[in-house]
Amino acid sequence: MRKLPTIEDVARRANVSRQTVSNVLNSPQRVRPGTRDRVQVAITELGYRPDASARRLRTQRSNTIGIGMAPATRGVSGSVLDSFLHAFTAQADKHGLRVMLFAAVTPETELEQIQRLRDAADVDAFMLTETHHGDPRTGWLIDNAVPFVTFGRPWGIDDITDPAHPWVDVDGWAGVYQATMHLADTGATRIGYLGWPRLSGTGDERRRGWADAMRERFNCTDADLEALSIASLDPTAAAKEAALVLLARSSPPDAIVCASDSLAFGALMAAASVGHLDFPIVGFDNSPVAEALGLSSVDQCVDEVAAAALDLLLDERGVVAPGEPGVDTRHRLVTPRLVVREQTQLVRHRPIQPAPTGRRENKETK
Amino acid sequence: MRKLPTIEDVARRANVSRQTVSNVLNSPQRVRPGTRDRVQVAITELGYRPDASARRLRTQRSNTIGIGMAPATRGVSGSVLDSFLHAFTAQADKHGLRVMLFAAVTPETELEQIQRLRDAADVDAFMLTETHHGDPRTGWLIDNAVPFVTFGRPWGIDDITDPAHPWVDVDGWAGVYQATMHLADTGATRIGYLGWPRLSGTGDERRRGWADAMRERFNCTDADLEALSIASLDPTAAAKEAALVLLARSSPPDAIVCASDSLAFGALMAAASVGHLDFPIVGFDNSPVAEALGLSSVDQCVDEVAAAALDLLLDERGVVAPGEPGVDTRHRLVTPRLVVREQTQLVRHRPIQPAPTGRRENKETK
Repeated sequence: MRKLPTIEDVARRANVSRQTVSNVLNSPQRVRPGTRDRVQVAITELGYRPDASARRLRTQRSNTIGIGMAPATRGVSGSVLDSFLHAFTAQADKHGLRVMLFAAVTPETELEQIQRLRDAADVDAFMLTETHHGDPRTGWLIDNAVPFVTFGRPWGIDDITDPAHPWVDVDGWAGVYQATMHLADTGATRIGYLGWPRLSGTGDERRRGWADAMRERFNCTDADLEALSIASLDPTAAAKEAALVLLARSSPPDAIVCASDSLAFGALMAAASVGHLDFPIVGFDNSPVAEALGLSSVDQCVDEVAAAALDLLLDERGVVAPGEPGVDTRHRLVTPRLVVREQTQLVRHRPIQPAPTGRRENKETK
Repeated sequence: MRKLPTIEDVARRANVSRQTVSNVLNSPQRVRPGTRDRVQVAITELGYRPDASARRLRTQRSNTIGIGMAPATRGVSGSVLDSFLHAFTAQADKHGLRVMLFAAVTPETELEQIQRLRDAADVDAFMLTETHHGDPRTGWLIDNAVPFVTFGRPWGIDDITDPAHPWVDVDGWAGVYQATMHLADTGATRIGYLGWPRLSGTGDERRRGWADAMRERFNCTDADLEALSIASLDPTAAAKEAALVLLARSSPPDAIVCASDSLAFGALMAAASVGHLDFPIVGFDNSPVAEALGLSSVDQCVDEVAAAALDLLLDERGVVAPGEPGVDTRHRLVTPRLVVREQTQLVRHRPIQPAPTGRRENKETK
């Protein structure tokens, strides 16, 4: 590895003292023009740059934001955090900030990493994702006055408005409310909901968006809402089974809003498999799959989330002035955006033909 | 922000000199046990840790690997590099290494970032993705003896075996060859290929895997191969159109191997739309969509790619001993793995029913 030139190398090459080089860098007006030029030539020739590590020792500023990286999740909607990471890195760059990734398997091991990076002054602030109620990471960061922001609001009772816990989140309620109203506007009257099992803050909030829209638009009772909704975990096969149950009820829905694109994909396959080729479905996450299928979906607007998170972090670090007293400047709820698409029909309305050659015929004679 | 305790704080608390604290840390045998205990207590009470920035100044080691982060790509297969990043971060952690992300929009702007990080000694080595022939980044890194490895082999004539350019790549030829042989084993005889337009190194290599398998198994001529293949860019709609053209030829294929899952998804929709509900299709990338659709697909084995990349980087950094002379220890070609699935039928073989309620009836009377 090439050894980087030091301030001493520059001094030697320019035949001046180390202090003179330092003066040229920091108070050039104190150095005679001839000497200054000689030092500048030496700096250029050697490719010397003042060392960031040395600057960091003085300033305790690494201009780096740490982000814990969970193991890869599979699943159609697993890419939202990855999209966010792309957006965050690009926007951080515009503020001269870099992103340090570190492995995060559980909140506990992530906290150990956070403590280590913090102790070493390698990171100025942390961006956390997927926080939960009673999260040990946020507790420690608050106790130790380490700047952070979370993507995802805390779901506890007291901490959601706590100025010590800055967060940015996407308003899932508003996204699903929009999606439901859109389906109502296009003629659906019995809009079903395919969500996750209860007691996830994010999931409950999305379901509430659908329930409020249905109460407002169609005066639905709690019993109506129960009859129109069903829960499933994300894998497409599970979602398809749940959607088939929903579609087989005595008064089935005529459209379905889903808590994720993964659920929506399952619902689409369920509807197609019972012959409903135009069944109106809206997903959540606006994933590449939604785009490929022509599925309408709620976009989480990761660019806005990244901008809001950086805004809160820069505020924390004192670069941006804090807002007016009494205004909540520590929390941002981003309103997602429904992307409406012409839904792709998986098959055309025409008779099924046999495949042209060998293999299928073999299969059919089995 | 809490000010971190310094070595001076420890010295003051333990009522010893700074040098004594340093001795306790670096040569404890030189310090009397009573003094040593007092210093240890002060270190624990204050939570002092030797500063990584100071260590870095001495060692020029940041234990950090830089990775340029391209803007988010949409598309079904866009997540391979994201999956790789998860795997790489997790495995780097096991070697005590972290990952520094920085925004990379073009190879030129990425190179500027690389130079800046290198000058500041913030990063020891770089992991590059999506390199191309004549890439300015690899040229600069080689010229400046900065350790790096690329995910993706260089496609130039001379540089693929250049020991100065360490790379790890996935053997696309082997993946598509496997996929083609698998389809032949299950009864297909006219296996088509839906690939990208020529002159992309990665794409040509994958096509060659199909072509070699077809020549070997079915004695295909170049004319046969032309008749069985077609090219398209990745968006599903474009892929679907191309697959429809292929399926409409006078001697259409009875199965299709695709250069990506995005192309495979288009092919699946094309086949379903003309009534071939069981049409055998194999994709490439083993994306979440392939999993959701039950589509067989070639898995790039990002865990193995990450392990190989780290192996080459650690070797470069002198931690791992270099291999025997004459053995190529600077390049790794990972063999991908075909994941065979029972393909999901998008619809069942049964008559199409009308939708149960309002909206669809409205549409049908329009």
